[in-house]
Amino acid sequence: MSLSSSPAGATRAGEPFAAEALKQAIAAQREMALALFARLAEGSRGDPGIMRDTYGDGENFGHAVFAEAARDAGLELQCDAAANTYASWAGEDRTRPRILMGSHLDSVPHGGNFDGAAGVVAGLVVIAALRQLGLQPRCDLTVMGVRAEESVWFEVSYVGSRGALATLPAEALDNRRIDTGRSLADHIATCGGAPESLRRGERFLDPDRIRAFLEVHIEQAPSLVEAGYPIAICTGIPGNFRFPNVVVKGRHDHVGTPRRFRRDAAMAAAAFATALDEIWAEHEAAGIPIAITFGRFHTDTRKHGMTTVPGAFHFSLDVRAYDAGVLAAIEARLPAIVARIEKEKRVSFDFRARASAAVGPVDQAIFTGMTQSAARLGIRAMPLGSPASHDSAAFAAAGVPTAMLFIRNENGSHNPDERMDIDDFLDACTVMADWVAANAT
Amino acid sequence: MSLSSSPAGATRAGEPFAAEALKQAIAAQREMALALFARLAEGSRGDPGIMRDTYGDGENFGHAVFAEAARDAGLELQCDAAANTYASWAGEDRTRPRILMGSHLDSVPHGGNFDGAAGVVAGLVVIAALRQLGLQPRCDLTVMGVRAEESVWFEVSYVGSRGALATLPAEALDNRRIDTGRSLADHIATCGGAPESLRRGERFLDPDRIRAFLEVHIEQAPSLVEAGYPIAICTGIPGNFRFPNVVVKGRHDHVGTPRRFRRDAAMAAAAFATALDEIWAEHEAAGIPIAITFGRFHTDTRKHGMTTVPGAFHFSLDVRAYDAGVLAAIEARLPAIVARIEKEKRVSFDFRARASAAVGPVDQAIFTGMTQSAARLGIRAMPLGSPASHDSAAFAAAGVPTAMLFIRNENGSHNPDERMDIDDFLDACTVMADWVAANAT
Repeated sequence: MSLSSSPAGATRAGEPFAAEALKQAIAAQREMALALFARLAEGSRGDPGIMRDTYGDGENFGHAVFAEAARDAGLELQCDAAANTYASWAGEDRTRPRILMGSHLDSVPHGGNFDGAAGVVAGLVVIAALRQLGLQPRCDLTVMGVRAEESVWFEVSYVGSRGALATLPAEALDNRRIDTGRSLADHIATCGGAPESLRRGERFLDPDRIRAFLEVHIEQAPSLVEAGYPIAICTGIPGNFRFPNVVVKGRHDHVGTPRRFRRDAAMAAAAFATALDEIWAEHEAAGIPIAITFGRFHTDTRKHGMTTVPGAFHFSLDVRAYDAGVLAAIEARLPAIVARIEKEKRVSFDFRARASAAVGPVDQAIFTGMTQSAARLGIRAMPLGSPASHDSAAFAAAGVPTAMLFIRNENGSHNPDERMDIDDFLDACTVMADWVAANAT
Repeated sequence: MSLSSSPAGATRAGEPFAAEALKQAIAAQREMALALFARLAEGSRGDPGIMRDTYGDGENFGHAVFAEAARDAGLELQCDAAANTYASWAGEDRTRPRILMGSHLDSVPHGGNFDGAAGVVAGLVVIAALRQLGLQPRCDLTVMGVRAEESVWFEVSYVGSRGALATLPAEALDNRRIDTGRSLADHIATCGGAPESLRRGERFLDPDRIRAFLEVHIEQAPSLVEAGYPIAICTGIPGNFRFPNVVVKGRHDHVGTPRRFRRDAAMAAAAFATALDEIWAEHEAAGIPIAITFGRFHTDTRKHGMTTVPGAFHFSLDVRAYDAGVLAAIEARLPAIVARIEKEKRVSFDFRARASAAVGPVDQAIFTGMTQSAARLGIRAMPLGSPASHDSAAFAAAGVPTAMLFIRNENGSHNPDERMDIDDFLDACTVMADWVAANAT
C-alpha cells in the first residue's frame, strides 16, 4: 500500500491506492455517469421504459453514446464482427493479457435504463478515476459494449460476447428477430458487423489474452434491498435450458363440450405449469436455488374467445439453476409430466427449439480479491448467486477469469420501474477500480 | 292417426300424419335446405370457417337470406326492436298462442355454418312440409331468426331472445362490441332495431301467447357420434356464471428473480385453472355434469417475453351446470381458492364484470311428445342434456314451454370443422314437424 500515491504523480499498477483517494476519484466521475445515464434514457425511450432493441435503433444508439464518451475520454475505439464496441486505455505493454470491463447495451422491450448499460458506464468511470489517480497500467484496460445479450429479440443469448469469442453456433445467425422477421445475420451486417466472419468462427477475443472479464450489473431481484446491502459480489451465474416456442395442440370446441370429449390446450398448459411450479417448490424447500418462468403463456389470440375451448396454446419456458446436475435432473422429469398430461387432456406438446446456457463459474481468486477490496474500502458487500444469466457466463465458458458485481435495485429489472441509486453504483465502481488497480499488471 | 290424410287435401291440426307421408314431405325440402345452407356459407365466409358477426354484416346477411326465403314461401315477415326476424304462416285463429320455431343466425368468429342457422332452416323446412301435406294450423306457426346469441361479440348472451321477451337488462345495451368498440345499442339501431324501446322494457313477445319455443340445433359435442344416434331430444339446458374479463395483477420481473420475490401472474392463473379443473374432476367422479372453460387465457401480449416474469394475466371463465345449486356451490368455493393463490403468489385477482344465465328447464310434455313422435316415426333419438346454453333457456326463463332437438356433429361446434349430415338434420325436422302438426291447435 502506497500512501504516497497522488492524483498528480504516476502510480504503477499492482499497488493499491489509499481508500479515501480512490473513493474521491470515483466520486469525481459522478456527474459524468449521471449525464451518460440521462443521455441513454432520453434517446431510447420505450414508453413506458426503455427500448434498446437488439441490433436495432435502440441498441445502436447505446453504442453511439458509448463511443462518443470514449472518444471524448481519449480512449482507443474498435469494433468487431459482431459489432461490439471496445474502448481501450493502452497499457505500457500491449502484449499482456488485458482486463475487460463491460456489459450489454441492449434492453428488453419496455425495460429499464441500467440493465446492461450500468456495466459499460462503470468501465468508463473506473478508467477515468484511475487515470485521474495517475495509474500507469501495464496491460490494456478495455471497456466493452456488448451486443445482443437480451434473448427476447432473436431468441438466442450472448450473441455479442459469444460472437467475439467465436463460441456462437453458426446456425444462430439464421434466427429471425421476432418483430422484424429479418435474420440475425442481416441485422448484424446492417449494424456494421461481419456475419460471415462469425459464421466462419473467426474470433476477435482470444481467451488466453484476457486477464479478466469484469461485469457490473444491477441486481434483478430485491435480495440486496432485503438484506440492506448496497452491492454484492457474485458467487456464480446460473445455467439454463429453454424452450422458446412450445405449442400445445388440442381442439377448439364449444364451451359446453363435456369433459370426456375435451382437448383443452389451455387447461393442459396450466397443468404443466402447475407441475413445474411444484418441482420448484420442492427445490425451494430443499434449499436448492432454481427459477422457472413461463414468460409467454397464452391462448391463440386470433381464435380465442369466452365461448370456445382453446384448441391451441403457446408458451416459452426458462429453467435456470447454479448446478448443471440440478438442471439435467429437472429436464429429465419433463417427459413423464408431459406424457401424463397428453394422455389426460388428449393434447400434444410440441417443444420445438431448445436452447441452453452452461452454468457460469466465477473466478475464485477475483471473488476473493474483490471481497478483500470491499472490506479494506469499508464498502458493505454481500456474496450473492446471480439469479440471471449474463455475458460473464459466455466469458467463463470460454475459460476467461470472470467476476461480477451487483448493485441494489428494489424494483426488479426488465421493467420500467427498475431503480438504481448512484451512490450504490459508485460503490461497485470503487471495488472494481481497486481490483483493477491491483491487477493491471 | 288419420290414414286418409294426403298431400292434396287439407288436414286439420291435431291429427298426426302417416309416418311415411310426413317423412316424404320433409325429404322433399332437402334441396331447399341444402341450397339455403350453401347460400349462408357462401355469403359469410370467415376464412377459415364462418363469420356471422353479431349485429354486423355477417349476421345481417343471415337475416337477409332468411327473409328472402320466407318471402319466397309466402310467409308473413316481421321485425322487432331487437332486429329479430319473424316469418309466420297464419293460422285459422290468430288469437291463439303461436308455435315458435327458430334459433340464432350469428356465429362465433371462424365458427361453423350450422350452429344456429340449422334451427332457422328447420323451421322453414317444417312449414314447407306441413303446407305440402295440406295441414290447416289453427294457431300461427312462426319461424324466428334470433339475433345475438353468441356472447363472444358483446360479452352478453341471448340479446335477441331476451330483447323480444323484455328480459334483457337495460345496462347490457351499453356493452361494447369487442372488435368495433361501439355500443350494443348503436349496433342494434344500425341493424334496424329500436334500442330505446328495449331500454324501456317494451316486449314484442308475450310468453302467455306462445304455445312453445322449439329449437333445432347441432350438437356441440360428439355425444351422439359416440352413442351412434342421429338426433337427441334435450332434457335440459345448463345455466352458467361467467367472468368475461378477469385480470391477475402481479409484477413484471427479470426471469432470474428468486421465488420469494416473485409476483408471477401467469403462474397464479395456472394455479387457479388447475384448482378449478380439480373441482371439475370431483364433479365428474360424482356423476354431476358441469363444464369449466378458460376460453381466453393469456399473458399480456404487449409486454410478455421469454425473459420476463409475467406481471399481468388475462382470462375469461365460464362455469356451467344443469343445477342452480351446483353452480352456486362452485361459485362459493372461488373466494377461498383466490385468497390462497393471492397470498402464495403475491398477486391480486380482479374479476370485474360477472354475467350469468339461469338453468333452462325443458317442458316435460313436449319432451314426452317428441320422444313418442320419434318412436312412432322410427327415428332413433336419445335423451341428452344440452352441454351448451341456447336461446331456449331465455324462453324457458320467461315461462314459455320450450324444447330442443340436437343433430349429430362429430367435430364439435364453434370451429370451422363443424359437421352435419343432411339426413340427420331432416330426421330432427321430421320429429319437430310431427309434434307441430299434433299441436298447432
